[in-house]
Amino acid sequence: MKWIDLSVPINEKMPVYPGDPAVKIEPAGDIHKNGYEDHYLSIGTHAGTHIDAPSHMIVGGATLDQVPLENFSGRGVLIKSGMNLGLETIDGVSIQKGDIVLFHTGMSGLYREPEYYNNYPAMTEELARYLIDKKVKMVGVDMCSVDHEPFPVHKILLKENILIIENLTNLSALDGLEFRILAFPLKLQLDGSPARIVAEIPQTNS
Amino acid sequence: MKWIDLSVPINEKMPVYPGDPAVKIEPAGDIHKNGYEDHYLSIGTHAGTHIDAPSHMIVGGATLDQVPLENFSGRGVLIKSGMNLGLETIDGVSIQKGDIVLFHTGMSGLYREPEYYNNYPAMTEELARYLIDKKVKMVGVDMCSVDHEPFPVHKILLKENILIIENLTNLSALDGLEFRILAFPLKLQLDGSPARIVAEIPQTNS
Repeated sequence: MKWIDLSVPINEKMPVYPGDPAVKIEPAGDIHKNGYEDHYLSIGTHAGTHIDAPSHMIVGGATLDQVPLENFSGRGVLIKSGMNLGLETIDGVSIQKGDIVLFHTGMSGLYREPEYYNNYPAMTEELARYLIDKKVKMVGVDMCSVDHEPFPVHKILLKENILIIENLTNLSALDGLEFRILAFPLKLQLDGSPARIVAEIPQTNS
Repeated sequence: MKWIDLSVPINEKMPVYPGDPAVKIEPAGDIHKNGYEDHYLSIGTHAGTHIDAPSHMIVGGATLDQVPLENFSGRGVLIKSGMNLGLETIDGVSIQKGDIVLFHTGMSGLYREPEYYNNYPAMTEELARYLIDKKVKMVGVDMCSVDHEPFPVHKILLKENILIIENLTNLSALDGLEFRILAFPLKLQLDGSPARIVAEIPQTNS
């Protein structure tokens, strides 16, 4: 097996969604004084590479701990969408029940720029509804969000319990490969969680 | 595939290692006011089910982001050790290079009791050295720690870049099964990280 990391590093310098609290990391134990090094991490549930649970946008929706484990992994499908997140971008792509569909827009190249948060394309509602019809497990993007306020696409997907992955990186490493996505969030009884999201490439594939 | 969760839930009521900071969860966005629900999680790098990086106890040791991705998964080996964490507990067990060896002591049944932190067995240095000889990837326990202050076993394992998983739960669900462990921590440039640790059971096995 070969593994590919699709997650951004977590540190105090990472950008966060406008209005969200910044990541803070404080020492909690000193190796010379206490015999071990230890830290206290403060992080928003939607900072960095993370997963949205239905309760993020749906009143009464499931929190992450209520989502069955099998929903956090599946066959990955990479869509080289560029900035077009309409139905035409998946023309001719075979999407199957249980797939995890990742859209590579290229926005991750602007991760540290203002444009990353104020000039990104929104997925169309038609595409979101198509992915629901196909019964995918998760939808992922290399952007800060799948759409803009008031977030109709978030609501369409989360209402159907389709999880959303945001702030993916390194998607170009998946070009031309068959892969499986593993996207297990922390066991938080909350609306979202940062997660280490990785692709597993079968040996026959590399 | 079938998945088994080996992670404790993360919330403000969870116990933490004596002296470590408590978990705090604050609201950051309100679904009625902001249109979305969002939280700010503050958590120690060694709270709940978590992974120790070498830098936790070794000066100049690797932080978690420096550990190759392939070290976070492998064939799982379950040792029903009970409270005996000496060499004899793995008598006759076939341990291979790259395995992730989990010791089921039963201490997880006392997770919320004072004994969980003040009366648990330590792994012997001999057993730790045997696991190093076998070139395992990770060593996991359903206890708050693999040993007691001044933590000789931690240091023996971490010095050889063998990662340690602590506060596992639900290990009895693995009895008699073949399984693979997936234990991907957050991409923190730090000494440890809470992680969603799961076992993957091949279909032929259930």
